Amino acid sequence: MAGCRLWVSLLLAAALACSATAVWPWPQYIQTYHRRYTLYPNNFQFRYHAGSAAQAGCVVLDEAFRRYRNLLFGSGSWPRPNFSNTLTINDEQCLLASQTVWGALRGLETFSQLVWKSAEGTFFINKTKIKDFPRFPHRGILLDTSRHYLPLSSILDTLDVMAYNKFNVFHWHLVDDSSFPYESFTFPELTRKGSYNPVTHIYTAQDVKEVIEYARLRGIRVLAEFDTPGHTLSWGPGVPGLLTPCYSGSHPSGSFGPVNPSLNSTYDFMSTFFLEISSVFPDFYLHLGGDEVDFTCWRSNPDIQAFMKKKGFSDFKQLESFYIQTLLDIVSDYDKGYVVWQEVFDNKVKVRPDTIIQVWREEIPVEYMKEMEQITKAGFRALLSAPWYLNRITYGPDWKDMYKVEPLAFHGTSEQKNLVIGGEACMWGEYVDSTNLVPRLWPRAGAIAERLWSSNLTTNMDFAFRRLSHFRCELLRRGVQAQPISVGYCEQEFEQT
Amino acid sequence: MAGCRLWVSLLLAAALACSATAVWPWPQYIQTYHRRYTLYPNNFQFRYHAGSAAQAGCVVLDEAFRRYRNLLFGSGSWPRPNFSNTLTINDEQCLLASQTVWGALRGLETFSQLVWKSAEGTFFINKTKIKDFPRFPHRGILLDTSRHYLPLSSILDTLDVMAYNKFNVFHWHLVDDSSFPYESFTFPELTRKGSYNPVTHIYTAQDVKEVIEYARLRGIRVLAEFDTPGHTLSWGPGVPGLLTPCYSGSHPSGSFGPVNPSLNSTYDFMSTFFLEISSVFPDFYLHLGGDEVDFTCWRSNPDIQAFMKKKGFSDFKQLESFYIQTLLDIVSDYDKGYVVWQEVFDNKVKVRPDTIIQVWREEIPVEYMKEMEQITKAGFRALLSAPWYLNRITYGPDWKDMYKVEPLAFHGTSEQKNLVIGGEACMWGEYVDSTNLVPRLWPRAGAIAERLWSSNLTTNMDFAFRRLSHFRCELLRRGVQAQPISVGYCEQEFEQT
Repeated sequence: MAGCRLWVSLLLAAALACSATAVWPWPQYIQTYHRRYTLYPNNFQFRYHAGSAAQAGCVVLDEAFRRYRNLLFGSGSWPRPNFSNTLTINDEQCLLASQTVWGALRGLETFSQLVWKSAEGTFFINKTKIKDFPRFPHRGILLDTSRHYLPLSSILDTLDVMAYNKFNVFHWHLVDDSSFPYESFTFPELTRKGSYNPVTHIYTAQDVKEVIEYARLRGIRVLAEFDTPGHTLSWGPGVPGLLTPCYSGSHPSGSFGPVNPSLNSTYDFMSTFFLEISSVFPDFYLHLGGDEVDFTCWRSNPDIQAFMKKKGFSDFKQLESFYIQTLLDIVSDYDKGYVVWQEVFDNKVKVRPDTIIQVWREEIPVEYMKEMEQITKAGFRALLSAPWYLNRITYGPDWKDMYKVEPLAFHGTSEQKNLVIGGEACMWGEYVDSTNLVPRLWPRAGAIAERLWSSNLTTNMDFAFRRLSHFRCELLRRGVQAQPISVGYCEQEFEQT
Repeated sequence: MAGCRLWVSLLLAAALACSATAVWPWPQYIQTYHRRYTLYPNNFQFRYHAGSAAQAGCVVLDEAFRRYRNLLFGSGSWPRPNFSNTLTINDEQCLLASQTVWGALRGLETFSQLVWKSAEGTFFINKTKIKDFPRFPHRGILLDTSRHYLPLSSILDTLDVMAYNKFNVFHWHLVDDSSFPYESFTFPELTRKGSYNPVTHIYTAQDVKEVIEYARLRGIRVLAEFDTPGHTLSWGPGVPGLLTPCYSGSHPSGSFGPVNPSLNSTYDFMSTFFLEISSVFPDFYLHLGGDEVDFTCWRSNPDIQAFMKKKGFSDFKQLESFYIQTLLDIVSDYDKGYVVWQEVFDNKVKVRPDTIIQVWREEIPVEYMKEMEQITKAGFRALLSAPWYLNRITYGPDWKDMYKVEPLAFHGTSEQKNLVIGGEACMWGEYVDSTNLVPRLWPRAGAIAERLWSSNLTTNMDFAFRRLSHFRCELLRRGVQAQPISVGYCEQEFEQT
């Protein structure tokens, strides 16, 4: 679909400046006028332009028209307007041109934020010209469904609000030490023995499909993460022999460490497992983790020591590299690209040049901007997350620090800067579940959304504060339990239903 | 009702130890046994004991029986049990004896936490003996409905969960600088001009009545706060002349400071206003504020300066004292007692000996325990809040620090210690509204509930962690959006309905 132009015309019905500053994230270029047009819900239509490559039947846009109509006017019925003196403006149109359906989705969102309602209940839109595009192609949110299980509805609701913020990547940290909620059809024992509850606390194949399709309709990619060799305790019960038995002196202690890199059976398992994952998740990229590998258990185990001796490895980073390289080769064979956490780079694992490195460590071992510099200097693409750990919460307007981050504020050539493909807001789940996810996520993640979408010149804090306050009220209107960023009120407050 | 004994018998129907550690806050004395009794929802009855002073018609208990029946078993219908082999245990009883209906309410709550459900869905209660009473008589939660308006439903919901935690005082910080949502019938302009929205963002007389009665039925007093002379900006528009005009040089700047203490009209207004408040809020105590009075505006105003000269006041603390003493005299005339923030004591305002001083400043000017020492040394009763500001949130298990506070850990005689009547968890509203109130309040406030209810010996952190985790799951079961305190899961997770 690239190359052909998509025209969506929004038929309005009648004719100032009031709400343009309501747009979040801020467009690259926007010009607003005092002249305003009235929108009549009964007569309002989204229509494909005759010259558009996409036409009725394009599910992504047909569905988006339906969603945005509802977001704009609600699902109630509206009194028929009196057209006697509004005839001349029936042919006013709002034109949205985009090269891709995904761009059209973003434009629809912007359009929906431009419409405002007078005290008398009339809908208006001001004459506006916008040219817009994202600054970075990868604008993600990470949800962790292992430390706490998140009901499917929480994930779907998050995808909705991500679209309102023009996020386009859902990084799904599916499994970790605590639980394994992903129901594998190749290895059903993983969930049966590794989930909190194999009936109620799992994601079935149908659930995963639903998430992927729900995301797709909103222009969001699903980047699935299966983190190894660390963070895998929950894999153990379902796959005997997969994890390294830790030793206490000369005997196994009964506890387990990272995936056992010394056994062929480990790689056989990973081949089969990632074959499934590669087919279940259609996105080109998989996230393979690779963070925080604790060497204590490997060090304690005599079989691991023997394996290292045989391989001539002098330190555990070499052992980790061996594991990860083997895994990456497996995944490459499935025609998948991969994203890994920064340790894979830090530990000098040899990876393909098209590997994407995600920077998450805030201070240690090196300041995160230094890390961005080093990764891009080595020619790898980089994703920034370190300053954007939304699970960490402090009292007050902590969105400001996150907003002020400039992802390219490191020393480097323009080629290096071009290798920064974006960033991700991370919501780790140690202290977060469906009870506090939404207010902790919104509108704080919005600060990151704007940093990743809008121009590097969009940095005025007062302007951002005003717009984010407004946007937060709009989120409440849309039913999102977004927390306040300062003293004040919204016309429509959140009320539990 | 004091003095006569109330007997409530809970008719059970059939006969182990599993759930006793589920009780939060922990009782003063508890003995549990392995022997268990089955509860059959269809046959379960709360009954007044024949010898009880309270009988059917006692609204507080009749209503509590209805609520707790629902909390225990839900409102569904239950299959009829087969009694063929349970005959002998029909006359098993659970006896709750209390000197007051309020104590009976607390006992019902404890009872409801002792009942547990087997995997097969059968309800059980273990043989248990409990003797319980609160360590401190004043166990409060402050909600701030000025910085953000809280819908009535948020307040009522909070009262429910307060009862689950055995809190007994709702400190309602009704108004402040930001807005005046309390609808006064004597001065309707206060709300009309001082609320965020005089239609949607107010508490009508009916709302206030409902809160008071809802609280009463749950054994909770409503302590209304109308904070003066500072924190009153929202009063200004509705009562011209009430606030001090600030000066810039020799001219009024257009902005306003605290209540103007130099005018007779101020005291006329306060007399009339607090006459209304004294009749609307039945509790003996009113909270009169008195915190954070900024002297800058008073200092700038020539009329204030002239008034001070006339009165012979050399500093602004004397002026503040003058105002507060006059106000306290007014309120005393209405046969009300009063609670004030610590500055009133710090600034050496002469107050009645039965004044209750609430300690809120964490470090300045003196460490809060030192403040407790000084207040009680002067013979005043004290309420502790300083370490319990729940609006302040940090990442991780921050309930632990709040739990570890020992309110009597100051130097002083046992007479001094006896003057500590309790404490309050405060949820200030600058960054809190109905979107994030519940997860920020629960179960964190539970830590404070137990500190104020249970023995000073109930300090084991592992034990508290286990029970609070369990209690939090019970809160989820009861529909409360209580946030997690660590990694894990509950059988029944929260799902937005």
